[in-house]
Amino acid sequence: MSIKSKIRNVPNHPKPGVMFRDITTLLKDAEGFREMQNILVQRYQDVKIDKVIGIESRGFIVGAPLAIALGVGFVPMRKKGKLPAETVGFDYELEYGTDRIELHTDAISAGEKVLLVDDLIATGGTAEAGCKLIAMMGAEIVECAFVIDLPFLGGRQRLEKMGQKVFAMCAFEDEE
Amino acid sequence: MSIKSKIRNVPNHPKPGVMFRDITTLLKDAEGFREMQNILVQRYQDVKIDKVIGIESRGFIVGAPLAIALGVGFVPMRKKGKLPAETVGFDYELEYGTDRIELHTDAISAGEKVLLVDDLIATGGTAEAGCKLIAMMGAEIVECAFVIDLPFLGGRQRLEKMGQKVFAMCAFEDEE
Repeated sequence: MSIKSKIRNVPNHPKPGVMFRDITTLLKDAEGFREMQNILVQRYQDVKIDKVIGIESRGFIVGAPLAIALGVGFVPMRKKGKLPAETVGFDYELEYGTDRIELHTDAISAGEKVLLVDDLIATGGTAEAGCKLIAMMGAEIVECAFVIDLPFLGGRQRLEKMGQKVFAMCAFEDEE
Repeated sequence: MSIKSKIRNVPNHPKPGVMFRDITTLLKDAEGFREMQNILVQRYQDVKIDKVIGIESRGFIVGAPLAIALGVGFVPMRKKGKLPAETVGFDYELEYGTDRIELHTDAISAGEKVLLVDDLIATGGTAEAGCKLIAMMGAEIVECAFVIDLPFLGGRQRLEKMGQKVFAMCAFEDEE
């Protein structure tokens, strides 16, 4: 509960009617940030994981310390055109238009076990594309881990329908 | 030396004639990433620091694990419009046009001691703006820490002229 209580609710961001769940108030709180990290470390320390993959850019803040704690490498999954070397990507649909998520071609290897991390799962569009991209590269996703789940947007179900395991530290209902 | 040897050189990125120094090959290497972290922890573990501030977005990957290790809060410094709540910002000039770096107004407090972190210092424009923004908020910058320094672009000197202390783990010359 203390994780959830340290997340700030920002009304009407990024557009009217949307309540944005802001983890920066959790991150700047030394105790809160440490607790967030401890929950992840306890969950994954005895699991065979080769790499932690963080989704740009708040997923970097959640995933990089976890990779250090687990003693594994960290891989940034980025939006189109941000990674400098040879990439492989996956296009996915947004409410308006499309977007593309990319990994360096040498970021992960076939057969590796990876943990996919982001701060929040909403509709799950980016996470689903991320899972498909990782699968294309022949790696195995141990679990998708998030700080926040917004269950009314259906992202968790969408990933679970693909056969992915999903973990979220806390959930917010629409009215909350 | 092993940090430097794990950084990938990508020619002609983001434009012809530029050699991009890519830390993703260091990060995905469990040993390399851990060594990078250890260098920072050893340098700062006995220094009084209240917050680590990471510059979007590779600075998040370097700064967030360090904040966890030091037992302090982490603050993301972001480009214009990315932070959801009330912000304070600083505009700075680019080669073409201007950019703006922002912090949440409640991210740091007057009198706090902060460490500013990014993956690389080139001309130092963003880091200089970041230092000025932090100073505007009344906090004290203990040091600016980078994985990579490109000395021929003069960023370190620019920060040192402002009276900032600068640390970089390794440096690349233009021809290297």
